[in-house]
Amino acid sequence: MTTRRYIVPFAEGSKDQRQLLGGKGANLCEMTNLGLPVPPGFIITTDACRAYLAQNETVPEGMWDEVADALTTLEDEIGRRFGDADDPLLLSVRSGAPFSMPGMMDTVLNLGLTHASVEGLAAATGDERFAWDAYRRFIQLYGKVVMGVSGERFEEVLAERIAQRGAKDESALETEDLRALTRTFGEIVEADAGEPLPQEPVEQLQRAAEAVFRSWNGKRARDYRRMEGIPDDLGTAVSVQAMVFGNLGERSATGVAFTRDPATGEASAYGDWLPQAQGEDVVAGIRITRNLDDLHHDFPDQAAELDEVMATLERHYRDMCDIEFTIERDKLWILQTRVGKRTAVAALQMAADMVEEGLIDKREGVTRVTPAQLEQLLHPQFAPGVEYDALTKGLNASPGAAVGRIVFTADEAETRAADGEDVILVRPETSPDDLHGMIAAKGILTSRGGLVSHAAVVARGMGTPAVCGAGELVIDLKAQTARVGDVTLRAGDVISINGTTGEVVEGQVPVVTPEPSGPFAIVLGWADELRTLGVRANADLPEDATRARELGAGGIGLCRTEHMFLGDRLPTVQRMILASSAEEEQAALAELLEMQRGDFAAIYRAMDGLPVTVRLLDPPLHEFLPDVEELLVASARDGLDEKGRRLLDAAVSWREENPMLGTRGCRLGIIKPELYKMQVRALLEAAVEVTREGVEPIVEIMVPLVVTREELALIGGWTRAIADEVLGAAGVDIAYKIGTMIETPRAALLAGEIAEEAEFFSFGTNDLTQMTYGFSRDDIEGRILPAYLRDEILPGNPFEHLDAAGVGQLVRMGVEQGRAARPDLHIGVCGEHGGDPQSIHLCHEIGLDYVSCSPFRVPVARLAAAHAALGKTGPAASA
Amino acid sequence: MTTRRYIVPFAEGSKDQRQLLGGKGANLCEMTNLGLPVPPGFIITTDACRAYLAQNETVPEGMWDEVADALTTLEDEIGRRFGDADDPLLLSVRSGAPFSMPGMMDTVLNLGLTHASVEGLAAATGDERFAWDAYRRFIQLYGKVVMGVSGERFEEVLAERIAQRGAKDESALETEDLRALTRTFGEIVEADAGEPLPQEPVEQLQRAAEAVFRSWNGKRARDYRRMEGIPDDLGTAVSVQAMVFGNLGERSATGVAFTRDPATGEASAYGDWLPQAQGEDVVAGIRITRNLDDLHHDFPDQAAELDEVMATLERHYRDMCDIEFTIERDKLWILQTRVGKRTAVAALQMAADMVEEGLIDKREGVTRVTPAQLEQLLHPQFAPGVEYDALTKGLNASPGAAVGRIVFTADEAETRAADGEDVILVRPETSPDDLHGMIAAKGILTSRGGLVSHAAVVARGMGTPAVCGAGELVIDLKAQTARVGDVTLRAGDVISINGTTGEVVEGQVPVVTPEPSGPFAIVLGWADELRTLGVRANADLPEDATRARELGAGGIGLCRTEHMFLGDRLPTVQRMILASSAEEEQAALAELLEMQRGDFAAIYRAMDGLPVTVRLLDPPLHEFLPDVEELLVASARDGLDEKGRRLLDAAVSWREENPMLGTRGCRLGIIKPELYKMQVRALLEAAVEVTREGVEPIVEIMVPLVVTREELALIGGWTRAIADEVLGAAGVDIAYKIGTMIETPRAALLAGEIAEEAEFFSFGTNDLTQMTYGFSRDDIEGRILPAYLRDEILPGNPFEHLDAAGVGQLVRMGVEQGRAARPDLHIGVCGEHGGDPQSIHLCHEIGLDYVSCSPFRVPVARLAAAHAALGKTGPAASA
Repeated sequence: MTTRRYIVPFAEGSKDQRQLLGGKGANLCEMTNLGLPVPPGFIITTDACRAYLAQNETVPEGMWDEVADALTTLEDEIGRRFGDADDPLLLSVRSGAPFSMPGMMDTVLNLGLTHASVEGLAAATGDERFAWDAYRRFIQLYGKVVMGVSGERFEEVLAERIAQRGAKDESALETEDLRALTRTFGEIVEADAGEPLPQEPVEQLQRAAEAVFRSWNGKRARDYRRMEGIPDDLGTAVSVQAMVFGNLGERSATGVAFTRDPATGEASAYGDWLPQAQGEDVVAGIRITRNLDDLHHDFPDQAAELDEVMATLERHYRDMCDIEFTIERDKLWILQTRVGKRTAVAALQMAADMVEEGLIDKREGVTRVTPAQLEQLLHPQFAPGVEYDALTKGLNASPGAAVGRIVFTADEAETRAADGEDVILVRPETSPDDLHGMIAAKGILTSRGGLVSHAAVVARGMGTPAVCGAGELVIDLKAQTARVGDVTLRAGDVISINGTTGEVVEGQVPVVTPEPSGPFAIVLGWADELRTLGVRANADLPEDATRARELGAGGIGLCRTEHMFLGDRLPTVQRMILASSAEEEQAALAELLEMQRGDFAAIYRAMDGLPVTVRLLDPPLHEFLPDVEELLVASARDGLDEKGRRLLDAAVSWREENPMLGTRGCRLGIIKPELYKMQVRALLEAAVEVTREGVEPIVEIMVPLVVTREELALIGGWTRAIADEVLGAAGVDIAYKIGTMIETPRAALLAGEIAEEAEFFSFGTNDLTQMTYGFSRDDIEGRILPAYLRDEILPGNPFEHLDAAGVGQLVRMGVEQGRAARPDLHIGVCGEHGGDPQSIHLCHEIGLDYVSCSPFRVPVARLAAAHAALGKTGPAASA
Repeated sequence: MTTRRYIVPFAEGSKDQRQLLGGKGANLCEMTNLGLPVPPGFIITTDACRAYLAQNETVPEGMWDEVADALTTLEDEIGRRFGDADDPLLLSVRSGAPFSMPGMMDTVLNLGLTHASVEGLAAATGDERFAWDAYRRFIQLYGKVVMGVSGERFEEVLAERIAQRGAKDESALETEDLRALTRTFGEIVEADAGEPLPQEPVEQLQRAAEAVFRSWNGKRARDYRRMEGIPDDLGTAVSVQAMVFGNLGERSATGVAFTRDPATGEASAYGDWLPQAQGEDVVAGIRITRNLDDLHHDFPDQAAELDEVMATLERHYRDMCDIEFTIERDKLWILQTRVGKRTAVAALQMAADMVEEGLIDKREGVTRVTPAQLEQLLHPQFAPGVEYDALTKGLNASPGAAVGRIVFTADEAETRAADGEDVILVRPETSPDDLHGMIAAKGILTSRGGLVSHAAVVARGMGTPAVCGAGELVIDLKAQTARVGDVTLRAGDVISINGTTGEVVEGQVPVVTPEPSGPFAIVLGWADELRTLGVRANADLPEDATRARELGAGGIGLCRTEHMFLGDRLPTVQRMILASSAEEEQAALAELLEMQRGDFAAIYRAMDGLPVTVRLLDPPLHEFLPDVEELLVASARDGLDEKGRRLLDAAVSWREENPMLGTRGCRLGIIKPELYKMQVRALLEAAVEVTREGVEPIVEIMVPLVVTREELALIGGWTRAIADEVLGAAGVDIAYKIGTMIETPRAALLAGEIAEEAEFFSFGTNDLTQMTYGFSRDDIEGRILPAYLRDEILPGNPFEHLDAAGVGQLVRMGVEQGRAARPDLHIGVCGEHGGDPQSIHLCHEIGLDYVSCSPFRVPVARLAAAHAALGKTGPAASA
């Protein structure tokens, strides 16, 4: 025949051909070439699959000829014939995509058996029960995965037969039972599929291969690819391999082994096996498996050989390998290998160990841990292996798990927490008034609001687990109940929430807080050596600053001063807003000055020697006033007192149609200059104060929401004047920088002009995304984004992953123009994207100086920044 | 002496040197060189002024030497000496900036007179009274404009003396009176200025020149420049000219003349003059002036000479000229000329006549009319010359004047208008519920809301005069009163509003509606020949479409369908929103389909053969629901019935934090596909219907608020499917286009991708401006924009004039990328900027295909588009 186009025998492929051969197939080839005992076989390539799918499910011309040819070679090698009635060659047929992918067609074993050849198999192996069991298994599997017969019918009949025998599993079935079952299974197939199971082995093979091809486009497979971002046009390969049998008598066995412990990462092999079994028996969990020590006892030679195979594979793959093996009548066969999946703890441990052992270098070690794994290690989680039923699911607003008693008000949260109780604050949504309760609670659950709702943002900032926008939850604050369907939760009831997944569970789920291990610090240390992108933290409070520093932050990239205007300071802030004279306003501002000076001094102390970027007040003033509606309703119901009326007037006067685009940021500073001047003075006076204590403050004053150079020039002018006065009077020389958020499209478009007045830029990618898309996150996340993601109108949530094409284009323009105007311009990102690995890669690529994220994400960002520097988009998925 | 640096004698300059010589000075030079009888003189240039201001108000070295030199030449020419006690040369000194500019120092006449030379002047002229009157005038003027003495003191003393004489004006004063006044005036100067009036003529001249220089930086001059966009660094020139006297006996006179009638444009000279007078007497309006026929009678030779001068000037300047002349003892002198100011009517008439006469070509004719003048002709105005006191002032939200009785509700507006009454609808703000009243009213007045408030936008769309955001107006809807300070207006009171200026007047001000004249059509016809930019109209109703077509629109660039969902259709729309089943929703949609089909058919008929761009529904659904607050308050007060509760639930469910950035535009279409499909079906069925009547519909379906190609692909797919069905069933072939608004920054950034799905783009620059700046116009225009404009943080209101640097950059990118992807992409602008001349110039420059504006602005846009094509930014300001 001519050149092969669609077939690759095991001996001709290698592990680097996963695109063509699929992950499994590539590894089978690799092992064959390493001289390991792999049953022979060949691969039908992904090219064949793609051609099949492109040609309206028609097998490409010549493929079956190539398959027949390869089969002949295989028969020659094994010395048996496929379809031979006396001593048939049996095959396993497996799918094998370039990436591991659930939802694809699984393995068909024992392919090639027919009514005729089963007797031949019995004769050839001298094991009649084995032969009929193989045939029974084949019909069951083939019927289900190739012919689409419901698996349950087979299970029922099988269970019935076992019950008739009074046994507890199939091992008790006799040859006679298996013959009978085989007959009944055949009838089930014929009834359900409308045709009998093919009795022609070649037809069996062809239909199995086509079924594998078609399963590439099955719904689950497509959904999975969408979720994981795997392209739709890769296709799957099919591996065809001679069968070996772990269930062929007492000197047969089958099992799986890991070259290191996949749970702990410990550097010793781990495995499960069963005597007289086929592979599915080991993973099915019906029979109790045995460990590798037992294998050494029962099959000492084979176990020793397996140890050698494992050592070979680990050396060869330079990673922990996961192996399927079978012993057929004392002969060890290796059926499959792949780089093994592992827990987060194990990933870190292995990375550290393997670098230590010299198996890999630091660069490789760093890429062996994913940001997601690292994150798992930073938050409490439901204990692994515990089973629970989720009552409902909301948005995974702030990661980590929490358990506590339900409270419905912030005050109660505070009181009960002060009594030592763990509480979960449950609210329709939260407001700044609830802050004290949010601080006191172990977790937060809201029925409304998106991933940028007040509750979500504050919770993430504090590192408190939160589930938000749990729409099925009906909260009745008056009755103090939260209902989901017919389940009613009351104040004081215990619930568990998982902010990493969005799950809400009635009752207590055990929670574990993984302890960051030695390897954690070791691997992150390497990450720091390798990355070029700085990592700072968004922190508003001294304790957050301290925590951020502990987690490796190189400074504070965003200190939001509005959080300093809440809680017990709210009355003073309201006095400032309600002031009816300049004197009243000044008096309130003077009080705030004292408080702010203390705030800033504490943060400088925590960050001694590291930069602290403080954003001047950003939110609109109505956020510091009560809700207009509540006041109006109260007014309609009972009337308002004098103070209530004044608050209502102020709230009405400051409320806006679109507060996101209203009187906030530097706009507020410009119409209320005394407010910004107070903040600047507090920042500089605090710097003087701590300098005298020997602390080194590095002050960066950041002006929010700039749209034009002139705004920054004006506020910069005030700042310099106050600095001259404060530092001059103190006789201290403290360097400070004035910079700006780039968070409006216009600021990015005019970055060149703005850079003339700014010593640093910080891209506020949350707002920049909102304005670039015209997406109010509060409004869009509940209704529009789910529809857009479902219909594939958007490839992903742009608030989670920075939109490279649109928002990223603005960031790129801003960076280029800003640096052109001021080559030493220091540029970062302080939106939530700063903690998202995918976005961090983009930030690295664009050439930013740093990202800033919430303290808890700092380690994740350090790791992702290292991956970005290594040009790695994350650990490769394994087949 | 060496080369002159700061002085230009009249004979050496020309009219093209206005930057150096100022407007007046340049024209004096030009006339001198034309051989007209101009009293000799010279110019101190703007270079000198700039040097003076740059050097901390120090006259540049050598300037006085050059002045002395020029003065000597002047003395030689005239044959008298400056400061000669016996026969003094007197001078006039005037400011002359490159642009006409109020607030600058005005003329000083008779400069050079002193206690000593006044007697010499008397002797030399033989007219003692003349000499003392000249001295009296000089002290008064010099004291005021050069030495800063309050003018009122002089006026008081003068009035006293006239009263003592029992006379009614100064002509009755004797020489003795004038001597006495001169003495008293001198004392006033010394008391007020702290020094006597200089008796050294050269010092008089130097101080006068410096005062002119300094007046460049006076507050009024600066304010004016800011308003008009005149650069601050031009500086002013000073013209120094030999005095001639119109008050030197009976054979002297002075006057002003226009080569054509500046009020009507009629092609015959027009002028006012007085015998025995100085120039100020003519314009002061104290004495009754005489006309040019009288001049021909009294001074026949000089009048004939003046006619020749006028003919020469008009031929030379190829425009109507405004001339100051003086006859001194039978000798005609021309003191000044400039291109004359004219009314809007006159501008059109002259442009048409001068082209007809062959004086100028069409291109020039078109530029002789400003868009602002044209606009005056399109709206009713307060009758010229009528005096009134404005009660208060709001924003000039929709141009034109209206008079009527106050009504406070839309229902009353409708009822009383149906009875034939003219009413002004007065509301705190308007909502879609008020539409019927707004249609019925002659004018609209609101106390809240900016230039893009509902009231303003709807009023402009209907061409109804409106004043919005009149913040001083306190409206009490319950009491049916509107109060400004202590003036209380009641329902039924007559008021007049001027939407062009924002004025609100108590009582009736006569209103005139200028009739667009023949020249209007002629000049706009030329504009249409010359422009390359198309002009379409934003029109939602058939009558608007008809009006737009009459006013020259080449199609409809934006037909907003939301206005078709209001009024008596609101209940059906609400049924659709409140529908609790798909059937209920379908039933409501079916009703809407009928209505919409009729709407669109009527518009196609009106625009037969011209394109009609229809935007699918854009606003968020809560705009069709009652206000949440009102319902909550009603609920708290009296409870709600079943329907009220359902409305409240729906209103709460659809309301948003930032509706501008929420569930609107195609987002709404995508989550409610049946709504958009209904509209598309109505559009196509209507097209089929009118085609059968012989009408040619040109259908352009526009999808709003797109952020990604996929949105457009999805909706385009629906559209094509419905078109195939509807047109196929009808057996009619109607071309239709699918396009999109580009109104989010992301759409502009990704225009290349989006153009793959769009056959046309229409930039929605209102929203694009809002999102690019992060400016919610509703919120920003009241509080932030005034502060930003005052502090010069923004150069202008970006909602009025398209922001070339920021938003314009996005438009430019969108056009470039869109055309790159689809070379035949048709691109327009349909924001309000489409009617703003400055923005139209930018649109032309960027290379758009058309602008679309409200019907009433179509003529303005046609003219501005022609100006843009001619590379002209508007008629030059004249000095």
